[in-house]
Amino acid sequence: MIKAGIVGATGYTGVELLRLLARHSQVEVTVITSRAEAGVKVADIYPSLRGHIDLAFTEPDINTLGACDVVFFATPHGVAQNLMPALMKTPARIIDLSADFRIRDVPVWEKWYGQAHGAPELVNQAVYGLPEVNREKIRTAKLIACPGCYPTATQLGFLPLIENNLVDPGRLISNAASGASGAGRQGKIDVLLTEISDSFKAYGVAGHRHLPEIEQGLGDVQPAGANPISLTFVPHLLPIIRGIHATLYATALDVKNLPDLQQLYEQRYANEPFVDVLPAGVLPQTRTVKGSNICRIAVLRPQDKDTIVVLSIIDNLTKGASGQAVQNMNIMFGFDEKEGLDIVALLP
Amino acid sequence: MIKAGIVGATGYTGVELLRLLARHSQVEVTVITSRAEAGVKVADIYPSLRGHIDLAFTEPDINTLGACDVVFFATPHGVAQNLMPALMKTPARIIDLSADFRIRDVPVWEKWYGQAHGAPELVNQAVYGLPEVNREKIRTAKLIACPGCYPTATQLGFLPLIENNLVDPGRLISNAASGASGAGRQGKIDVLLTEISDSFKAYGVAGHRHLPEIEQGLGDVQPAGANPISLTFVPHLLPIIRGIHATLYATALDVKNLPDLQQLYEQRYANEPFVDVLPAGVLPQTRTVKGSNICRIAVLRPQDKDTIVVLSIIDNLTKGASGQAVQNMNIMFGFDEKEGLDIVALLP
Amino acid sequence: MIKAGIVGATGYTGVELLRLLARHSQVEVTVITSRAEAGVKVADIYPSLRGHIDLAFTEPDINTLGACDVVFFATPHGVAQNLMPALMKTPARIIDLSADFRIRDVPVWEKWYGQAHGAPELVNQAVYGLPEVNREKIRTAKLIACPGCYPTATQLGFLPLIENNLVDPGRLISNAASGASGAGRQGKIDVLLTEISDSFKAYGVAGHRHLPEIEQGLGDVQPAGANPISLTFVPHLLPIIRGIHATLYATALDVKNLPDLQQLYEQRYANEPFVDVLPAGVLPQTRTVKGSNICRIAVLRPQDKDTIVVLSIIDNLTKGASGQAVQNMNIMFGFDEKEGLDIVALLP
Amino acid sequence: MIKAGIVGATGYTGVELLRLLARHSQVEVTVITSRAEAGVKVADIYPSLRGHIDLAFTEPDINTLGACDVVFFATPHGVAQNLMPALMKTPARIIDLSADFRIRDVPVWEKWYGQAHGAPELVNQAVYGLPEVNREKIRTAKLIACPGCYPTATQLGFLPLIENNLVDPGRLISNAASGASGAGRQGKIDVLLTEISDSFKAYGVAGHRHLPEIEQGLGDVQPAGANPISLTFVPHLLPIIRGIHATLYATALDVKNLPDLQQLYEQRYANEPFVDVLPAGVLPQTRTVKGSNICRIAVLRPQDKDTIVVLSIIDNLTKGASGQAVQNMNIMFGFDEKEGLDIVALLP
Repeated sequence: MIKAGIVGATGYTGVELLRLLARHSQVEVTVITSRAEAGVKVADIYPSLRGHIDLAFTEPDINTLGACDVVFFATPHGVAQNLMPALMKTPARIIDLSADFRIRDVPVWEKWYGQAHGAPELVNQAVYGLPEVNREKIRTAKLIACPGCYPTATQLGFLPLIENNLVDPGRLISNAASGASGAGRQGKIDVLLTEISDSFKAYGVAGHRHLPEIEQGLGDVQPAGANPISLTFVPHLLPIIRGIHATLYATALDVKNLPDLQQLYEQRYANEPFVDVLPAGVLPQTRTVKGSNICRIAVLRPQDKDTIVVLSIIDNLTKGASGQAVQNMNIMFGFDEKEGLDIVALLP
Repeated sequence: MIKAGIVGATGYTGVELLRLLARHSQVEVTVITSRAEAGVKVADIYPSLRGHIDLAFTEPDINTLGACDVVFFATPHGVAQNLMPALMKTPARIIDLSADFRIRDVPVWEKWYGQAHGAPELVNQAVYGLPEVNREKIRTAKLIACPGCYPTATQLGFLPLIENNLVDPGRLISNAASGASGAGRQGKIDVLLTEISDSFKAYGVAGHRHLPEIEQGLGDVQPAGANPISLTFVPHLLPIIRGIHATLYATALDVKNLPDLQQLYEQRYANEPFVDVLPAGVLPQTRTVKGSNICRIAVLRPQDKDTIVVLSIIDNLTKGASGQAVQNMNIMFGFDEKEGLDIVALLP
Repeated sequence: MIKAGIVGATGYTGVELLRLLARHSQVEVTVITSRAEAGVKVADIYPSLRGHIDLAFTEPDINTLGACDVVFFATPHGVAQNLMPALMKTPARIIDLSADFRIRDVPVWEKWYGQAHGAPELVNQAVYGLPEVNREKIRTAKLIACPGCYPTATQLGFLPLIENNLVDPGRLISNAASGASGAGRQGKIDVLLTEISDSFKAYGVAGHRHLPEIEQGLGDVQPAGANPISLTFVPHLLPIIRGIHATLYATALDVKNLPDLQQLYEQRYANEPFVDVLPAGVLPQTRTVKGSNICRIAVLRPQDKDTIVVLSIIDNLTKGASGQAVQNMNIMFGFDEKEGLDIVALLP
Repeated sequence: MIKAGIVGATGYTGVELLRLLARHSQVEVTVITSRAEAGVKVADIYPSLRGHIDLAFTEPDINTLGACDVVFFATPHGVAQNLMPALMKTPARIIDLSADFRIRDVPVWEKWYGQAHGAPELVNQAVYGLPEVNREKIRTAKLIACPGCYPTATQLGFLPLIENNLVDPGRLISNAASGASGAGRQGKIDVLLTEISDSFKAYGVAGHRHLPEIEQGLGDVQPAGANPISLTFVPHLLPIIRGIHATLYATALDVKNLPDLQQLYEQRYANEPFVDVLPAGVLPQTRTVKGSNICRIAVLRPQDKDTIVVLSIIDNLTKGASGQAVQNMNIMFGFDEKEGLDIVALLP
């Protein structure tokens, strides 16, 4: 059993981490920090954890966290980077679910996140925690930057096309929609049930922070000589709690010589425990991954035009955040990659 | 055309008032106040009003409000009572949608609302604006205290039984459920979509502020000599935007001599434009009154036991608040009582 | 007052027509037909109409329908075409909300709808009822083919770009999402609340019947010499009752010489009573048109790339079906185009 | 590992059983029958099971079923009773989730279920599978009649009061609300998202089949000499997928000598693994048991009146059906009672 600490577990990625770790056979959660809720029992805020987690929140403390084998950050961006310099000197390995260490180009990060970076010297030590791309680097990483939810769904959907340079990288479109838990657990009018439950809207069309992350990730897997990635990314807000659905569009570079796309996708993900390429003709529904770490993908080329459509779904809190964090931990510590994550989605 | 002012129209009862008044043939809204949003166009906060209301919010000002024929308060409790002493000296007639003037017993109000009353001397000048009980007094009232949402549904459901002393007044139960708009438009975690959209709960079971209001209202219609009203009131939160469903239980005092309940209810409400007693065997659904000012009622006595069950539904923002306010205004100014309120519910 | 008949009013477009016509000052609904429900009161199926519509369903009869001034078909496709030859010989003018007469190329219709057309000789007599394009033809039309819901939102969104040949017509994308009322009122497992309320999915990606309708409509407004329209259309199912949100993508043909898109859209729709181009920077939400006949549009070019993004929303039952039908009727009979449709959306 | 068969697993209780058994360490599902879907892979109907269950549906066959250690019936009422006479002769032990063997009084069953009973001679061999009452009898039972969803929530809520004869048994009220999965997975108009998602209603007020089941169950635990149980039961339909919330009302027989209710409930359920009495002042929310087998209970006496209010929640598909079935199986086969059921609810 390894010991795990969680910084900032009052939000939705925090409670999701606790749900997953509570049933993990090789991890014991020993510290859960929250400045705001120090002293309060975790199960008093999340009654679903009554009988499963008996800990109370404590003030964050480097010594206590540094004594853990692994520390998760389930904090808003800007928090992890402040604790990181001290924590990197301890033996703990770190999995940051926030955006602090995802972007390698520090000025780009600072532009999109609107603040100076608190630990720019550590950015290059972080491994981007998308196992389907970086599994080997994850094994030995000291610091993992866990991918965002939209970036996970979008990258897994585009990967086979980009790795094989089959589509125009300069005209990618990700039309994505997320459940409201992606907005976090904060008292904001624009995510009240009364404001969004019987509605649908796009947001952040002018520019969303996940855009540079996706472009960086797809650029990393291009073959040499490919043209640069340019993505149009339009996120939407769904009146559901969990789930991301990315509808991806790409233009085939050479439609006459395209390989069989179904086969391409099935082969690319044949050994991936958490990517499920659906049979030809079957389209994914977000409810089939609710609470599970699976990404389900369908690929089509409607009416044999040169526009390829990829549908890619995840649970934003699981494969899009906390499940992926546990998957990274499993890889880092040599556990079975599916340990604690072999969950049947809650359907209906 | 009369001139109407609205104080505090940034909340849901405010926008509902605007929706209704925008189509009322005899009212022009001339002032809409909000300290927080002064200078902002109403339609910028509520895009549904683009093309219908061209006003901007202004700071509340007694002179401007006092120059209106009617002033609506769509404010949280505690606000109207502070402006009321000054406003009562102007020619304006006032319809207060808040709880400030509903309870005649000032100490009771102060106990349940947890604050000193700001204008106790005016409480007895207020007419409780339930037209089905107080229509005549409303005609000439200077100040209307509009009933709360739960009290409207509960009182209309119990009225025929209480007026005729047919049930034990000491053991009434109102098991009611409200859509989330009843909680207002404030950034609170406990009404986020993520917290309540796939859930159901009771709240305020130990004591809800609408309890004394209902008990007072039912007491007012008892025949002389009846025992005092005692109600157990359990409200619940529904994962819908609009709608109140009250399931009422009462014990027949003399089950062998009960009149035909269906007939009793139909006769009591035969001339009420906004109370619809459903045919025997038909049960109400809140969606059938969405956006309309109707209260739909069914009355049953299951298995011929002595427990009478009444189902009473309204739209909490319409008959439960703003629609009832407009109905009061129509009565006060001698308009057709249905003017501006002859709306088909939005179904589906 | 003109007399109106409705064929097949048991579905959602039927009840929506009744909601709108019930408040129209110049129309009296005199006939409502349904084979399945003949003899049943309309208000017994739709309790929201209690007190507003006192008619019962009757068997469809050409003589009765032909005696109306206007007959609406709110039927599934394939029904109107069978009654049409007889009805066209009566004085009644006809507004068909179904797909029967939308596609001018009969073999194309037969391919996509999978059946022989029952009245191919009448197809060319039908006017496609999109007032923003065909207002003049509508005035004198005997038979209107009312546009589909997705086609309305998509065409209104693309019109200014296509009319001015500003984008590549061969690479249009409509990524659209509809509320579940678009699937009609039939007992099908795949639209149960339990199947779709906490989920999101694409459907019909391989080919949806609205695709040829949209391509035909956009082709009709192209300037001479433009390349043919080719659209990739991906519809999705939203867990809401009403609303369509179309997110449209087009590639600028000459990004350096693009006109100001905001100005282009505002001018194009300046005189349209039911198209509202939002101020720059404001994005539409479907709830702002719930129950109203408005189409709200925003146009953007994110990060100054050459991909133009248009967001276009409607209520699928109103501007996407029954509201548009009433708008057509108003034009045909010389009424004010907004009569009966000047509705504030139900928000929240 | 024991072998399990499931009859009729195409419905929601069937897929819930599969979700639970897929992670149970001591059970292997070897047969899943469905006449309608014979030959179809289970995961093709329920994609959430892809990678977890590789079986296909087969025609029901007594020999195959009889070779299992345990057979579950997840069928509509009326089915199990026809297969039961043959199956009782095999070595298999049987857990029937349907209503067929819940009511000991056969004429009562036949009256409420509107059909002749197909195996009346077996009714008395069935043990009512509510572990909190019948744990010892369940251990050795050949045939378990699993309780209904409303009866589970209602009985667990009332038990401590009835066992101790603290309330008037002749005036019990259960005002309960269920998620739509309780209506099953059938294509019926009245459970479409469009019909119920933004609405709330009571149903079955005149008489619901769970009424005699609850009255029988509560009667079984009364002390000698208590008056007969008489319940008013009003179920409501919630616009959520899973969850039952029962709000129970009872009148204290002797309010001055009532024991401490909080303590009474805590002691009654101290050793129950799946009943969680909440701390005083905390009220249950259905989301805290979503996907888990827990029943959460709060007990209050508002305003110190003599009406006791109990709030009792479960997930209707888990503790209200399939989870309770697995709990029964664990008891029957001597497994840890929590095996396969130690689940953290999916929150948010």
